[in-house]
Amino acid sequence: MSKAIPSRKEDYSLWYNELIKKADLAENSPVRGCMVIKPYGFAIWEKMQQTLDRMFKETGHQNAYFPLFIPKSFLSKEADHVEGFAKECAVVTHYRLKNAEDGSGIIVDPEAKLEEELIVRPTSETVIWDSYKKWIQSYRDLPLLINQWANVVRWEMRTRLFLRTTEFLWQEGHTAHATEQEAKDETRQMLDVYADFAENHMAMPVIKGVKTESERFAGAVDTYCIEALMQDGKALQAGTSHFLGQNFAKAFDVKFATKEGKEELVWGTSWGVSTRLMGALIMAHSDDDGLVLPPQLAPDQVVIVPIYKGDEQLAKVSVLADSLIKDLRAKGISVKYDKRDTHKPGWKFAEYELKGVPVRVAIGQRDLENGTIEIARRDTKEKQVVAVDAAVDHVEGLLKEMQENIFKKAEAFRGANTHSADSWEEFQELVEQGFVYAHWDGTSETEEKIKDATKATIRCIPLDAKKEDGKCIFTGKPSTQRVLFAKAY
Amino acid sequence: MSKAIPSRKEDYSLWYNELIKKADLAENSPVRGCMVIKPYGFAIWEKMQQTLDRMFKETGHQNAYFPLFIPKSFLSKEADHVEGFAKECAVVTHYRLKNAEDGSGIIVDPEAKLEEELIVRPTSETVIWDSYKKWIQSYRDLPLLINQWANVVRWEMRTRLFLRTTEFLWQEGHTAHATEQEAKDETRQMLDVYADFAENHMAMPVIKGVKTESERFAGAVDTYCIEALMQDGKALQAGTSHFLGQNFAKAFDVKFATKEGKEELVWGTSWGVSTRLMGALIMAHSDDDGLVLPPQLAPDQVVIVPIYKGDEQLAKVSVLADSLIKDLRAKGISVKYDKRDTHKPGWKFAEYELKGVPVRVAIGQRDLENGTIEIARRDTKEKQVVAVDAAVDHVEGLLKEMQENIFKKAEAFRGANTHSADSWEEFQELVEQGFVYAHWDGTSETEEKIKDATKATIRCIPLDAKKEDGKCIFTGKPSTQRVLFAKAY
Repeated sequence: MSKAIPSRKEDYSLWYNELIKKADLAENSPVRGCMVIKPYGFAIWEKMQQTLDRMFKETGHQNAYFPLFIPKSFLSKEADHVEGFAKECAVVTHYRLKNAEDGSGIIVDPEAKLEEELIVRPTSETVIWDSYKKWIQSYRDLPLLINQWANVVRWEMRTRLFLRTTEFLWQEGHTAHATEQEAKDETRQMLDVYADFAENHMAMPVIKGVKTESERFAGAVDTYCIEALMQDGKALQAGTSHFLGQNFAKAFDVKFATKEGKEELVWGTSWGVSTRLMGALIMAHSDDDGLVLPPQLAPDQVVIVPIYKGDEQLAKVSVLADSLIKDLRAKGISVKYDKRDTHKPGWKFAEYELKGVPVRVAIGQRDLENGTIEIARRDTKEKQVVAVDAAVDHVEGLLKEMQENIFKKAEAFRGANTHSADSWEEFQELVEQGFVYAHWDGTSETEEKIKDATKATIRCIPLDAKKEDGKCIFTGKPSTQRVLFAKAY
Repeated sequence: MSKAIPSRKEDYSLWYNELIKKADLAENSPVRGCMVIKPYGFAIWEKMQQTLDRMFKETGHQNAYFPLFIPKSFLSKEADHVEGFAKECAVVTHYRLKNAEDGSGIIVDPEAKLEEELIVRPTSETVIWDSYKKWIQSYRDLPLLINQWANVVRWEMRTRLFLRTTEFLWQEGHTAHATEQEAKDETRQMLDVYADFAENHMAMPVIKGVKTESERFAGAVDTYCIEALMQDGKALQAGTSHFLGQNFAKAFDVKFATKEGKEELVWGTSWGVSTRLMGALIMAHSDDDGLVLPPQLAPDQVVIVPIYKGDEQLAKVSVLADSLIKDLRAKGISVKYDKRDTHKPGWKFAEYELKGVPVRVAIGQRDLENGTIEIARRDTKEKQVVAVDAAVDHVEGLLKEMQENIFKKAEAFRGANTHSADSWEEFQELVEQGFVYAHWDGTSETEEKIKDATKATIRCIPLDAKKEDGKCIFTGKPSTQRVLFAKAY
């Protein structure tokens, strides 16, 4: 099979790249660091989008759209923010091309230079808070709960498909509130929405926590995150939710009149997930035969492959297939029927395995005679012959079971690869294998030194961590709780 | 009422701008020519997107995503294409900012200059056909039917909200085919999809036609369009579908092996509609009291306003409202219940009139006693008292009737403002009033001269035009059919 991919053990990184390529998810574009998301990859992203969009709307948010470009001066208004983003900006300096006078082709027209350069948004806090200043006058205008689906650009030096690309797709929520508590509640609420989505839709267990100062979003007071464990033992930050305090309200002078007639600064949050989730989804569940998709995010949950010789047999199989498709679709199950005569069944089996279609149904001549079909599940690769009459219920149950099973498998993997370290020696060894809970003295200096020595970072201070006296694994200084370390994507 | 807008007669252009502002649809951003689409405006755009996306998928198209940036050299590969787009490009020349050494703030880092400048996509033919070269080898890979929802940038000198903005949102379909006929059929199919959407969802009658050479898309063999008439007698091009011939296949060397083993160039199409449709929707139907939305594109189809004194009355009204909401939603009708105590009923009535909510339901104390509710429709402003038991059916029927009525009204308006001109004098007068069918000698020179004299352009050569011998209204030269003239947005 020309579509075979390397095994994870052989070369995890190559496995990831080849899987993306062979499953037709995405590819590198001629533009450095930018990817092309191919139709199959995009269909998965669309399922994610639709689900998240519904969850955002259910929690009271509305979508809007703000400009792609940010005036350079806006970026500077919040001091930490510009520090964090200036180094990786795509800058628009001109607005016209023209033919070179020497006939050598088209060149940038030097006369069409912008007075103020425009930055392609790396994130939209600045341009959005500039609007909020106009939109918010009174407590009646609050809370303002807005989300935007957009493309953003961060000029990354080292890129990888989905995980880190110069341009990526994301959603960014930006909310404004009358009180600190309300903004904090919103920050935590959206973290919970992300965790819910990761666990119950992506089937990917996550740890909720708060970032240390050095990993905080540029401009935030607190950054919350969800962290997942990939199959190579590395952590992946899958979503972040920021409590912005009054930082952007100060920078953009956004004040409101309280019920009592006082003037106060607005409190803010922002939160986002991106096409990086595609990378997480791929790495969390897939195996050496290709993608494994949780049924809830699979564009095609079921594929039916007919096994036949000649048009007459195909016609008979198709009668059964069509009736099955109708019944499955009536249950809200998405089905693809692949009766192409340009490819053999064996080729199709491998293809859909590679693409992670959860359930494969094969219908052949013998099945017609016996009133059965063959059902194969992608996650465990088990096959079962099922009576036609019981097929729809069976598939429906199977999809539910697979969704749970894929989660449990990932959870078991994480359990087996999560350790506690109590000494520096132990830490160095364990951190090569997955998550490590260890004591830390709470300083950025120590965090930096641990990173230099091991490449591991503090992924988060887990929200559910128990208070426990201990000693920092690096400095031996006192600590009151363990934090989560790992090497990370 | 502070929310009053000027009348159309008074100042059509100001009416349009003020309506957009007061109905909370969009506003200008601090970035020249770029708009902020506010939540209510975006909710309407989302309805359009969802409907179109379904129609594209039903005709076999898949979504994908291609990079925001296009290398400068790509744009030059198709000679007409670069001519058409070079003059209005946003050009990225650098990828980093830094602190100025003199402490004056952040500046573009001169050391971070790109080797090749990147253009922010004005349209994506070039970057997509570069991918298609990799994706297409054999007839088995065809047709390739792809759509992308994206933002694009064209550096417009004169901008207007929704109608012409530097950045806008759109969808661009890009398809590749084995034969000329198939590509032509696709071009026409998508024109029909657009016309279907315009007429049956936007309730806006359109004329389908083909553009003259001078109005053709840069790089197309033929450009088809749908043209609608606005209430000020100007035409608005609402969508275009291009037959690209083999132009981009030649430019990007995209060939395929036929069934017979020959190598041939691929045939292409592209087609798009944008947030400009929002401008069309606003101008086609709205009146001096605000927006009029066809029910199919209204984010809230029904709004319920309680009329009460004190909490006890509100509680009673709410019992009825909640039951009504439940029943309406069960029928797939979207309902908003506005029981805010910060605004009076009169204010709310004006607000929802301004925002074009199709059906307004008012429930007061007397209604509770009589078992009735008051229903007002936005298009004709008629009010009716209806028995509670009959309310859901009544609203359902009313929404259907309004959808049709809004279309018929626009159609009648177009009928009354469409003329035939047979002399130059007649033409000059009539073209100030709407669509004019007139004979034309078929040359770009004459087209240009007519435009210079009247500002009117040939909107299209209508597809359903009858052959009819006549004389060009400008030159008197022979002509075989009338074409459609108008001043245009």
